[in-house]
Order: sequence, then C-alpha cells, then structure tokens
Amino acid sequence: MKVLKNKSITDVSGFKAIGIHCGIKKSGKKDLCVIYSEKPAVAAGTFTTNKVKAAPVLISMENINSPNIQAIVVNSGNANACTGQEGYENAYKMAQTTADCLSLTPNQVLVGSTGIIGVPLPMDKIIPGIEKACGMVSKDGGTSAAEAIKTTDSFIKQITVEISIDNNPVKISGIAKGSGMIHPNMATMLAFIVTDANIGKSLLSKALKDSVSDSYNMISVDGDTSTNDMVITLANGSADNKLIDKENDDFYKFKEALDFVNKELAKMIAKDGEGATKLIEVSLFNAKTKEDAKLCAKSVISSNLVKSAFFGSDANWGRIMCSLGYSNGNFAPDKVDVFFENEKGKLQLVNQGIGIPFCEETAKKILDQEYINIVIDLNDGKHSTKAWGCDLSYDYIKINGSYRS
Amino acid sequence: MKVLKNKSITDVSGFKAIGIHCGIKKSGKKDLCVIYSEKPAVAAGTFTTNKVKAAPVLISMENINSPNIQAIVVNSGNANACTGQEGYENAYKMAQTTADCLSLTPNQVLVGSTGIIGVPLPMDKIIPGIEKACGMVSKDGGTSAAEAIKTTDSFIKQITVEISIDNNPVKISGIAKGSGMIHPNMATMLAFIVTDANIGKSLLSKALKDSVSDSYNMISVDGDTSTNDMVITLANGSADNKLIDKENDDFYKFKEALDFVNKELAKMIAKDGEGATKLIEVSLFNAKTKEDAKLCAKSVISSNLVKSAFFGSDANWGRIMCSLGYSNGNFAPDKVDVFFENEKGKLQLVNQGIGIPFCEETAKKILDQEYINIVIDLNDGKHSTKAWGCDLSYDYIKINGSYRS
Repeated sequence: MKVLKNKSITDVSGFKAIGIHCGIKKSGKKDLCVIYSEKPAVAAGTFTTNKVKAAPVLISMENINSPNIQAIVVNSGNANACTGQEGYENAYKMAQTTADCLSLTPNQVLVGSTGIIGVPLPMDKIIPGIEKACGMVSKDGGTSAAEAIKTTDSFIKQITVEISIDNNPVKISGIAKGSGMIHPNMATMLAFIVTDANIGKSLLSKALKDSVSDSYNMISVDGDTSTNDMVITLANGSADNKLIDKENDDFYKFKEALDFVNKELAKMIAKDGEGATKLIEVSLFNAKTKEDAKLCAKSVISSNLVKSAFFGSDANWGRIMCSLGYSNGNFAPDKVDVFFENEKGKLQLVNQGIGIPFCEETAKKILDQEYINIVIDLNDGKHSTKAWGCDLSYDYIKINGSYRS
Repeated sequence: MKVLKNKSITDVSGFKAIGIHCGIKKSGKKDLCVIYSEKPAVAAGTFTTNKVKAAPVLISMENINSPNIQAIVVNSGNANACTGQEGYENAYKMAQTTADCLSLTPNQVLVGSTGIIGVPLPMDKIIPGIEKACGMVSKDGGTSAAEAIKTTDSFIKQITVEISIDNNPVKISGIAKGSGMIHPNMATMLAFIVTDANIGKSLLSKALKDSVSDSYNMISVDGDTSTNDMVITLANGSADNKLIDKENDDFYKFKEALDFVNKELAKMIAKDGEGATKLIEVSLFNAKTKEDAKLCAKSVISSNLVKSAFFGSDANWGRIMCSLGYSNGNFAPDKVDVFFENEKGKLQLVNQGIGIPFCEETAKKILDQEYINIVIDLNDGKHSTKAWGCDLSYDYIKINGSYRS
C-alpha cells in the first residue's frame, strides 16, 4: 500500500468534485460541496444512532439502498436538524436539484449537512449554489470539497492511498470533517470515501461497517453520536479489477487499505478536537475480549479528568485507573500496567495496579509533546485495540461557550 | 419538616465529631475527621461501583454489615487507592486506632479517604492524628468535620432538618464533600448523614438506597463513580421514637426528610463543581418510564457541549435535543418541548421538537443568572425527574490541568 501525498478524492478515476461558497456562512468561507461519480457507483454508509436524526440523514438512509449512487451534496454552516417537515422537504430538494443538474434521479444522490441545529436552511442560497457547483465539478476540485465540509475544523482532512488488486492499481481516498469536540461524535462527524475499486455492494457495506467500528467509533463514546453523523463510501469500479464479490485475499487487501484511510482520518479528527493541543492515543493490550478492550480504551480517552491532566502535562495516572474502573469493561485491577510513551521515551507509572515511583522530569518531557501514547496492558487476555482523543483546553470552553455567535 | 439553620451533625442527639489538621495536606488545612456516636447506631451505606475500589471502601463495605457502628474516620488529601496490600492494611489500621481510642472494636468503625490516588498514606501523621482527634470529639465539632473532608470544594456542605415522629423531635443532618467535577462522581463524593431516629437497619438501608438514586446519582453519569465514593448514614435511636420497623407513615416521613437532606447536599455538590459559575437544574417531565426520565435528564446534564454553552450564556438548545437523542432513554423527538426558566422568566425554545423563534435578549437575561432550570417536557408519559449539574468553565481546566501540584 502506498500513501499518495497531496492527492485528493478527485485523483481517484471517475470522480469529480467541487467546493464553493454559496452564502450560508457569514464568513464567506466555502459551505457547499458536490462529489460526482461519472459512472454509477455502489454505495455503503453508516449513520448516526441518535434518535434525533437530521433531515439529510433521513434522506440518505433511504437513498443508500439504491443500487447505484452517483452524487453526494453536502452543506456546512447549517445542520438542518430539528427543522420538522419543512427541513425534510428542503433536504429532498437538495437531492432533487443535484439530480436535475447532473442528469440523475434524486435517489441516486446522498445528502449531508453540518452546522447549527434548528435553523431553517436558506434555500434561496442553497438551490442556486447547488446549480452553480454542479456545473463546476472537476478533477481538480477534491481539496475544495474537503474545505467546504469544514465547520470549526482548523485544517483540511484528506488522505489517499493506492493498492494493487488483480494487477490493477486501485485508489481509495477520503475527506472528513472533525466533530471538533471532546467526545467527538457528539458533534457532526462526516467522512466521504471514494474508490475506483470494483467491489460488490454487500461486501463494501461489510468492509465499511467493520472499519468504522475500529476507527471513527474509537474516538467516540458509545452511542454519543450527533444528529448529523455519517460515513459514506462510493466505489465506481473504474479500476477494472476483477469484481470483489467474496471475502478473498483481494477483499482483505481492500479492507486493510480502507481501514488505514479511516483510521488516519479518525486520528486527524481527534487531533483537531476543538481547542486541542495534543493527540492522545490509547494503546490497550491483552484484554479478555475485543469488547472489553474497546470499553476500557474508550473510557480512558473520554475522561475529562484524563484530558485535563494531559493539557496540563500532569502525570496523574490515578485518573487512568479510575476511568478503567468505571468503564464496564472487564479486567483485573491488580494486573494492570500503565506507561506513557512517545519519541521522548517510555515511562512506567503503574505496575500490577499499584503506582510505582517514576521520574517526574521524564514524565513532563513526554507529556509536553504533541503526541502521547498511553500504553495500558491489562495482562488479562489476548485482545488489543487503539483509541484516539485530545486534551481538554481553555480554548474548548471558549469555542463552545459562544458557538452560535 | 423544619430546616434548622447554622446547625451541623453534632446538633443531633448523641453524636460528637471533630475535624483537625494532622499533616497530610501541605496547605495546613484540616485533613482528618472523626464522627462518633455515643450509643451504638445502625448503619447503611452505598459504595462506589468502580472496579478499582480504594482500600477504605473495601474496609467499610465489610464493616457496614456489623449490627452496630459507632464511629467514622475520614482523611482528605490522599485517596489510599491503587496502593495494594499495604494500602488495605493502612485503612485497617485507621479503623483499629479509632476503635482503640474510643473503646470500640475495629468492625464498629467505618473508614473513608479522598484525595490523590496511588500515594501511600503518611501513617506517621495519620495515626497520631486519629489519636488526637478521638480525644477531641465534641458537640461543637460538626462544622470542623465538614471542613476536614473537603478537597477542592470551595464551601462547606452541610444541612440539618427536624421532623416529628411519634411526637418526638427527630433530627437528620448530613455533611458532604463535592466531587469537584464535571461528571460529579468521577471524583470522590462523600456524604455522611446522622440521625437520632430509632429505625431498623434494613429499613434504613432501603431508605438510603432509594434516596441516593434520586439525589447523588442524579448529578452523575451511570456507573461513572470514583474509586472512593461512599454515602453513609448512622441512626442511633436517641430520639426515642417508637422503632420504625415497617414501611408505615413514620417511615415515609423519615424517608421524605432523608430525601430532602440528600437532594440539598447533591445540589450543593453540583453547584460547587470545579470552576462552576452556575447551578443548572434539569426538570424533565412526562417520560414513559422513570428510567427513561432519568436517562434523558442525566444525558443533558452531563453534556460538555450543553455545559459550555451555559457558561457562555448561549441559548444553544440544539445541544439539548442532541444529548436527549443519544441518551438511550426512549422518547418521541417530535413531542419534545424545551424551556429555560428562573427568576428572570420562562422562555420556550422548542415546540414539538422544532425550534421556535425566541427573544435572544430574554434568553441572555435568564442564562446570565447563577441558577437556571432547563425544563424539558417529553409529552410522552407520566414520569418525571430532576438532575443537577454545573457549567463548564475555564477554571475547570485550570484546576484539573495541575491537580497534583
């Protein structure tokens, strides 16, 4: 697998895109994007489990069942959530307008929105915006699309890889917007992954579902998903590899590359948490079950106390033990080892559940870096996992104390 | 029921107490307290569900089964958690020393600790401290005991009420320390309630268990309990009322007063969350079940996004809808009404799940107050509940970024 630098979704065969400013954001920044596949593509998606689902999520959950999808239209700056029947009709109009402009049917279009909840969409800006954008989709527009789905994200999130399947080069490329949050999927998390792989719809769905549970769902608290979250992948078959229609080596190779793309995007989201100054990785080893591993790792990465301590470079490992303890994951407290690790060294703080003396100076050096790996060995089984998050800083409060203004 | 102002636990017949500085806290502040009942008392307790339990919790969970308890010894500044066998032995020595000084057996003593995790207790200070404190317990020492269990609490938490049972005045008085946290019971929450009521042990346990679930557990996230949490109540029968040994009117009268004491202490804890500037109450009405009501209310009060918005006086009601949606409580999103209410007025923001226009100026006036009630009507059943929390401020990060220093 090769990582292709400075490439975007439009570097994948058969995909065009564009991001423009249509007038939703007062700042004048890009707020609308269209992603277009020249050929019919099979699609898979995972959607928020929040009971309060935004209108675009409802539309996309219906349309994802279409055998072929050829376009995704996304606006930022307005979530079109808690907007009732009018909101639903507006989301449908976004799909319909996109379909009309690109000579598709509305059920071949997926719709996403992110931004403020409860405010009607400014359709007088969005409809002309979609018409304009559809006329502008191009092979150079990938990065502008990545730009247009941002809300409080401080940087563009995109990654492209290439693998070889059946002697054909196959590309997978994704763009994402961060939830910009402590518990990331409490705000909107959007990711759109396109590939020219030739793969069946049901296998694409299986690959995406598994991949999401090890990537975006490991920067989240169970069930804490926003009204608007979605991860969509489109595969248009332009690579002309032999159709992947069973779980063979080609499938696993594709899945591995898709996992890589999703984990890298997830890490970018974690690193770009609102006000974050550090990327924190939890590497959890040797749990009894995969589920225990995930529950324990997520609990640590979600603890406000752990996050605050990391902001302050405070080696307060007791908070890590405490968050493991209330995680609902099974483990034996008296078997736990805890280490901090990065390029400045590896330092053990807990041995068999008991704090051990450590060099505060070394701890400070490690914790002052922008990346810290919390290594937790439960010594209780064979299952491991990773989770990602960020520290909790003054700026988080600043951003979220006046989000609407 | 009368609330008795400026009274403490030692104003209840038969109880003495004292809080002193024994040398654990570098600041010179009080860090050790002893509560003593002159007569054998029946005891009930609820303890942390965290898998990582501090040594004093283990000791107290055993001793709570004793038919009679006469003393509680508590230190602050050190949690005696993650300290292994030595920690357990140290907690036992605290009970034993207290018992020796007060002519009791060690299993008549309960032990509590709160503070930093993973550091061995300084027994050279604690043992002489307990010996000193046991000699000083008095009818004036209640408030000093309340002072001595504080960690980052900014004010003393205590309340005393009087009821009449069987024509006898019965007092119930409690002291508590805040968890000083956003999700309150992720840090230590301690509460000690004493009463001169004459009540059977099993009924006291029942009353306490129910009461805790409607008070301290409603300022908490399910299962998010610290290594050291405990709520203890002692009833020494000095009021000489006819023994309450069944669920009759006397029991319900007692239970109502106990509920009041616990809810008031819980609210004080919520208000004193680290860095908090506002007390937020969630009044949730008309859920299908009590469990749904609690899940929904807790989810709202625990949302960092909701808390940050309240710090900034930002009427971002979308975050309330969102946190309801991921709560796991059942409700119909299109039936929900949301209001903000306090002495500055009552303002509706959501009607049947949809945002409605509101006066931003009125919203700001309400949200700028120190107490705000978020009224949520699910219009979906007959069950209601309340939950309490605080806003999330810069100072939270400041306090928790350097807790150990």
